[in-house]
Amino acid sequence: MRTPLYLDDITVGQRFVTDAVTLDEAAIKSFARAFDPQPFHIDNEAARHSFFAGLAASGWHTAAITMKLQVESGPPLAGGMIGAGGELTWPRPVRPGDVLHVESEVLAVKPSRSKPDRGFITLKSQTINQKGEAVQVMTVQLLVWKRPL
Amino acid sequence: MRTPLYLDDITVGQRFVTDAVTLDEAAIKSFARAFDPQPFHIDNEAARHSFFAGLAASGWHTAAITMKLQVESGPPLAGGMIGAGGELTWPRPVRPGDVLHVESEVLAVKPSRSKPDRGFITLKSQTINQKGEAVQVMTVQLLVWKRPL
Repeated sequence: MRTPLYLDDITVGQRFVTDAVTLDEAAIKSFARAFDPQPFHIDNEAARHSFFAGLAASGWHTAAITMKLQVESGPPLAGGMIGAGGELTWPRPVRPGDVLHVESEVLAVKPSRSKPDRGFITLKSQTINQKGEAVQVMTVQLLVWKRPL
Repeated sequence: MRTPLYLDDITVGQRFVTDAVTLDEAAIKSFARAFDPQPFHIDNEAARHSFFAGLAASGWHTAAITMKLQVESGPPLAGGMIGAGGELTWPRPVRPGDVLHVESEVLAVKPSRSKPDRGFITLKSQTINQKGEAVQVMTVQLLVWKRPL
């Protein structure tokens, strides 16, 4: 059990690094069949002739894997990771066999003006492959609880 | 087979509405176990005492379902929906039994300056529940091909 972090424990510039996970071809195709059934995510031959020039994971699969890594070994926020929204980009495709981890940095910490028990942090999270390349960059607003008095 | 749309066919203000899908409790928990294993997404009793005051779908599940609806009955872009990134927010939780569909509007159409065969559109997509409330609002940049000469 990791020590839960409250808003009081979080500072701008604080960094977090998750464990790594390997994304295999079967997982890429299985996610895509369920949620993003486009040829370049499920069919190797079609993918070869597509924009991606080879099988690529759905960006939403990358986002989902990123969330799993964050929940299991990212910032251990007290009460969980509750996202209000954010921005994301996918600068490079994720390929079968890629090994991904997530590196995050706190960009802002803001106590709520109206609700004294909570605040928001802005977290920039990069999902990084085995070559050190970012495959997803996300900046999210997360609700974080203050330490109970 | 729906008629594929090229950049030439797309105009600012154009709208698209998908079919609807029902999200049941088993699907919410199954997605969450795989990608967002937090108590408020997988355990009814824990969820009741959480910020969400009841079981809620992972935002990434909503995003993935939105993609499925877009691919299957949203804008039939020639060559598929290829997102470069965007912004998203989740203004309301998705609950078991919610019936979701997606309504999209084209906000911008921009031919590429450097590559004459393609361009980008900005698409605002709202994922809407059976009460007419937006549960996800997303604004994405999509790569769209020009009609081959």
